[in-house]
Amino acid sequence: MATHFERQLEALHVQIITMGSFCEKAISLSNKAIRGEDCIKAIFETDREIDTKEREIENLCMRILLHQQPVARDLREVSAALKMISDMERIGDQAADIADLSKYIDEKHVEIPPLIGKMAEMTVNMVTESVDAFVKRDLELCRKVIDDDDQVDDAFNQIKEELAELMYRNLDAKAGLDLLMTAKYMERIGDHAVNIAEWVEYAITGEHRNDEHQMGG
Amino acid sequence: MATHFERQLEALHVQIITMGSFCEKAISLSNKAIRGEDCIKAIFETDREIDTKEREIENLCMRILLHQQPVARDLREVSAALKMISDMERIGDQAADIADLSKYIDEKHVEIPPLIGKMAEMTVNMVTESVDAFVKRDLELCRKVIDDDDQVDDAFNQIKEELAELMYRNLDAKAGLDLLMTAKYMERIGDHAVNIAEWVEYAITGEHRNDEHQMGG
Repeated sequence: MATHFERQLEALHVQIITMGSFCEKAISLSNKAIRGEDCIKAIFETDREIDTKEREIENLCMRILLHQQPVARDLREVSAALKMISDMERIGDQAADIADLSKYIDEKHVEIPPLIGKMAEMTVNMVTESVDAFVKRDLELCRKVIDDDDQVDDAFNQIKEELAELMYRNLDAKAGLDLLMTAKYMERIGDHAVNIAEWVEYAITGEHRNDEHQMGG
Repeated sequence: MATHFERQLEALHVQIITMGSFCEKAISLSNKAIRGEDCIKAIFETDREIDTKEREIENLCMRILLHQQPVARDLREVSAALKMISDMERIGDQAADIADLSKYIDEKHVEIPPLIGKMAEMTVNMVTESVDAFVKRDLELCRKVIDDDDQVDDAFNQIKEELAELMYRNLDAKAGLDLLMTAKYMERIGDHAVNIAEWVEYAITGEHRNDEHQMGG
């Protein structure tokens, strides 16, 4: 029979999976919004759901910390969850930022660089996999997410070059600037997915990347 | 005579002030780097100092939490410090991002929009004041920082318009895109200063903005 702590941890996993799925939805919708699909309102709603879920998970973690006083790996798992949800919350913000820009991009009727859609796909995968890695304690999957971010960064740099080229030709300067910001927000989403994966890695190994970064020392 | 807890809190204040001064230095240097001053290396060093300081403060906070088990306002103060340093750490990252861009901006020999320098000044002030507000438990000063961010956001939007205009005329597209990113990083620094101020507000009042966001519920 599961202990009370195990049941709470199971509840935490379910909540994190839900929050992760909200993030994936927000990213996918933001990629549709810049293509003129009518989903700006849905993005803002999803962002609010993400915020609400963050508070619920924060409260759950605090209850676990106060009442169970977990140690070692269990403590790390709860601490990591608290850090992960901050990054997830910011993914929702970035999607909302893209939604804000999408109005201006859409009215210019410009072609969206295909790589922006590719970035959206890649970052959705990274979020799915980092949450999976947390629930399954899968270190290899964490590391895959961390490595995958190089492709997202490359895509951003390539889009920047492409946009400059298009602007030398005939792309409207305002549209170019807004598309650059969109790509930048996608790149930031990738960074947050990496942060999530790094906290999962910490939960599993007790070591955080970026050298001796540790909680509880 | 000060209790052990009071002395630890005093040490925490000193550390936060130091970390804040590193952030201010990083912002000021990044504003010089885009003007061709030779300080890119100094920015990366400052960013590393910020990272080290974050870990030191995190460890200090964890020691306080474990050994003193503070409650109520004392607990909030330590929790707020833990959140604040994440935002400070990110300010260092943004300054380093500007340093990366400054190489490309400098080689284009373009004129830097004066508003970018203004954004640097404003955000340095916001960081100074939010740290001040923490140490002095000054609620009014927190709220000033939060309000001041509107001016930073306005400056960003104005720079975006200006850059589009300059690009319609003769500003090089790549330089325009890099200057936009620089302004965006400054705007993000302003957002982090607001986050810091909001955590200070939480430490003082027990209430976090963005509705019922609370730790320890």
